[in-house]
Amino acid sequence: MKTGGGAGGERAPLGRRERLHEIIFEADTPTGKAFDVALIVAILASVLVVILSTMPELRVEPWQGRLYAVEWVFTGLFTAEYLLRLGVVKRPIRYARSFFGIVDLLSILPVYLTLFLADESHPEALLVVRALRLLRVFRVLKLARYLSEATALKRAVIVSRHKIFVFLTAVLIIVVIASATMYLAEGQTNESLDSMPEAMYWAVITMTTVGYGDVTPGTITGKFITAALVLMGYAMIIVPTGILSAEITAHRGKGVSTQSCRACMHADHDPDAAFCKFCGEKL
Amino acid sequence: MKTGGGAGGERAPLGRRERLHEIIFEADTPTGKAFDVALIVAILASVLVVILSTMPELRVEPWQGRLYAVEWVFTGLFTAEYLLRLGVVKRPIRYARSFFGIVDLLSILPVYLTLFLADESHPEALLVVRALRLLRVFRVLKLARYLSEATALKRAVIVSRHKIFVFLTAVLIIVVIASATMYLAEGQTNESLDSMPEAMYWAVITMTTVGYGDVTPGTITGKFITAALVLMGYAMIIVPTGILSAEITAHRGKGVSTQSCRACMHADHDPDAAFCKFCGEKL
Amino acid sequence: MKTGGGAGGERAPLGRRERLHEIIFEADTPTGKAFDVALIVAILASVLVVILSTMPELRVEPWQGRLYAVEWVFTGLFTAEYLLRLGVVKRPIRYARSFFGIVDLLSILPVYLTLFLADESHPEALLVVRALRLLRVFRVLKLARYLSEATALKRAVIVSRHKIFVFLTAVLIIVVIASATMYLAEGQTNESLDSMPEAMYWAVITMTTVGYGDVTPGTITGKFITAALVLMGYAMIIVPTGILSAEITAHRGKGVSTQSCRACMHADHDPDAAFCKFCGEKL
Amino acid sequence: MKTGGGAGGERAPLGRRERLHEIIFEADTPTGKAFDVALIVAILASVLVVILSTMPELRVEPWQGRLYAVEWVFTGLFTAEYLLRLGVVKRPIRYARSFFGIVDLLSILPVYLTLFLADESHPEALLVVRALRLLRVFRVLKLARYLSEATALKRAVIVSRHKIFVFLTAVLIIVVIASATMYLAEGQTNESLDSMPEAMYWAVITMTTVGYGDVTPGTITGKFITAALVLMGYAMIIVPTGILSAEITAHRGKGVSTQSCRACMHADHDPDAAFCKFCGEKL
Repeated sequence: MKTGGGAGGERAPLGRRERLHEIIFEADTPTGKAFDVALIVAILASVLVVILSTMPELRVEPWQGRLYAVEWVFTGLFTAEYLLRLGVVKRPIRYARSFFGIVDLLSILPVYLTLFLADESHPEALLVVRALRLLRVFRVLKLARYLSEATALKRAVIVSRHKIFVFLTAVLIIVVIASATMYLAEGQTNESLDSMPEAMYWAVITMTTVGYGDVTPGTITGKFITAALVLMGYAMIIVPTGILSAEITAHRGKGVSTQSCRACMHADHDPDAAFCKFCGEKL
Repeated sequence: MKTGGGAGGERAPLGRRERLHEIIFEADTPTGKAFDVALIVAILASVLVVILSTMPELRVEPWQGRLYAVEWVFTGLFTAEYLLRLGVVKRPIRYARSFFGIVDLLSILPVYLTLFLADESHPEALLVVRALRLLRVFRVLKLARYLSEATALKRAVIVSRHKIFVFLTAVLIIVVIASATMYLAEGQTNESLDSMPEAMYWAVITMTTVGYGDVTPGTITGKFITAALVLMGYAMIIVPTGILSAEITAHRGKGVSTQSCRACMHADHDPDAAFCKFCGEKL
Repeated sequence: MKTGGGAGGERAPLGRRERLHEIIFEADTPTGKAFDVALIVAILASVLVVILSTMPELRVEPWQGRLYAVEWVFTGLFTAEYLLRLGVVKRPIRYARSFFGIVDLLSILPVYLTLFLADESHPEALLVVRALRLLRVFRVLKLARYLSEATALKRAVIVSRHKIFVFLTAVLIIVVIASATMYLAEGQTNESLDSMPEAMYWAVITMTTVGYGDVTPGTITGKFITAALVLMGYAMIIVPTGILSAEITAHRGKGVSTQSCRACMHADHDPDAAFCKFCGEKL
Repeated sequence: MKTGGGAGGERAPLGRRERLHEIIFEADTPTGKAFDVALIVAILASVLVVILSTMPELRVEPWQGRLYAVEWVFTGLFTAEYLLRLGVVKRPIRYARSFFGIVDLLSILPVYLTLFLADESHPEALLVVRALRLLRVFRVLKLARYLSEATALKRAVIVSRHKIFVFLTAVLIIVVIASATMYLAEGQTNESLDSMPEAMYWAVITMTTVGYGDVTPGTITGKFITAALVLMGYAMIIVPTGILSAEITAHRGKGVSTQSCRACMHADHDPDAAFCKFCGEKL
């Protein structure tokens, strides 16, 4: 979630380009925030239009034509916004290559491609990139410390990544073993379990307790294997929950003190510390 | 869950209206508690009557007539209670506008409307508001510190609201992306996935591990997308669990006592501590 | 899980009845433990026999006859055990009225009743009480501190009971409101949702993410209600998890120090306490 | 996950056999790590080949022949690796008897057996053992402290094993009681519940919230039993989650540093502390 521009420390009178930059890329001024809120509303509306245009009830005239028109209005707006961003930043190439730069481009490109290519439009392709644009919502809410919360979540996930990797490897191995056992037991008789990929799909759907019911065991042996896998899956969800929960608890308990040592500048002190634990300086 | 009346500090002799107020709006006296318990029982019974009156087996005579009569008895009782509340409070308008005032009115109004309007009754409409009246159960149990527990839960949710918002936005974005991908993959071939709203219904049902099985993937690609989404949903439930768990833990360990020792200035005392546990000074 | 007899402090020479009592009711001596292990094995075997006797494949001769015989052997054994327990305890009436006394009686009575009553046996009725007898397993494992773990769990549940009650009431209210809304939306058109009890069954199955798929929404409105309920259920499981997790953490962190104050005999000190927090005495 | 060889403290010039040993059994040198990474890739590829060879689409020529050939290449490679390991270790018998020794042998043996026995191959039997070989992935990643994470998880599980045993016994008893009740209620009318094993399968699938929908209650009584069991299962997942979460939290907060200050004897220091945080003394 890089946001292109810095936080802007100088409060000197700004030129026109600088002011535009502040409005478009930052959310610290009222105008900048209003621009971002309007943008979020436009993104949400454009997502809604694409969703509506996939409904069979609205794929008849006059709805199809109207939705097509609205679609072009949003595409025009987003194109203007993209060009504005390119013109305002100091390094347009860097913006164009950034995560949001690519997402912004991809969210308008498919509409233009339909002019030159097939007449059969695939509006749903737009949704994938347009939905990513919704990540901008975090930027708008930056002031309200939402970003710092996202950062805290991210940190907890990062700190736990070794444990999560161990967990996912274990899940993978259990899925392979369970589906191979099930394939051995019912592969010949159960037509929805006639290959290993099907059996692995069954194992994932079962172990995560989704349980569609499109692939179910037909024999007593298969039911026994299923019960064993299900109880294992039921038990395994506990592991990562405990890991992350402990990680967040630990960071919360530790993170309270923001005091940093005057001598060695270390900041990670406990709230009850009276002396710097790195250099022994009194806090 | 505002409860209309204060806790009543004065114990002076009360007039009739004051006594009625105490009985109806407070649960600190035996009579007041008895009234509230009787009210809860009546609400539960009236909910049960409405539930029974929707069953086809009981929609024939003589049951339908009997249930209809009981329904009117409860409506009469609740009307009397509502009028009593209006007459007893100092500011009837304020009560009528409060959450429980509106709920109390709405839970009797539909029955009277059936007299003037259609003969086809919709008893289930009553249930939605009658069920809300069950929230009064917390008021009756106030003395047993249930309300403070509800408050503790509410506080934990409020403190975590930024994290929960970040989480829900992430869930929304994942649902949109997953359903768009699925619609791209199976929209043409799978008739239960023939529009984006259907695909989003599928994504929510799948990601939360409900898995009805009324919408299931039909192709290998779709099954792969499903497995990926399911594992993501399986992993994501962990995040809010950890957040709330950490929040409750933190509040439990910390929140209650903010007293610090006058001698050694240590602050981390238990709520039941009478002496400083670090230096022995009286708190 | 009361176990009838005390822990037996005296180690004086015992009479025959006392020795039998020690073997049957206690698990502290090798013979007593061996008796309990043999009992658990017998209970497990008798449960297995009843399970087997319900299988259609084994309801033909010669299996049915053999299982019937084995059933009578176990009934004989358990009858002998029950009479022995009655004869050995000091207060037979008190044992007969205790939880395990009633369970022990109920687990043999139905077999005798089949002699006088119907010829059609219902072996599954036995299972419910026989399964309860499995609770004795905790007694056998008493020495290995399993009971204390069960106690810790029980204490955590008890401490959290107010929060759990608040949670369950909220779940009940949500189930009633959601099922009434769903009944309003699809009650006329969806034949598996044609009464409130059916709708409440649907709400429970959906909210807990079981999702059988025998009752599913048929309209867009119904699907929207379902998605909302599902996300609510997905979010609500977090609440009790966090509550109990915090409770267990708190008890674990606090329970470490077993030091009690010499002056005031209070025991609930933190591990890092140097002075009694209740009376100021140095620990 | 014993790994056969020690960590090797001596850095003296090694003989050829010692060097081979270091490459094959250890992951501390670049060559050793490269060997392990290559091995993991080979194992993953061989698992993929077996998965592909079960797909009906690839069970026709020329694919079947090609996959058969690749299968033999991997078997040859793994045979060479197995013999190399046997020749390099000081005590070949001990390696052959170790967990990985047996897994290594079992993962190649079935392919050779197809030469002498039936012509109908069961490649899925290979998967069960080949998947177990994936556990070697933890060894490769040893340097990156993944093993220590796995150890931390293992320790948390071990410390909680008494609680988990109590929990699983309770689940077993509830499953037996619930399935017996359900069998009593619907055993005569519901053909998918016509024996206790079927009812127990239903109870496990329901209680863990998988809910395939292949066995569902058909009567109001059955639906009531189901709702009760489901709410119980929904509540029970909380218990082990809380247990493990608390265990991990406790170990994280406590375990790592056991160093205590020489001046004030405080012990609760962070692992990265160089000075006592209570009195400033150098640790």
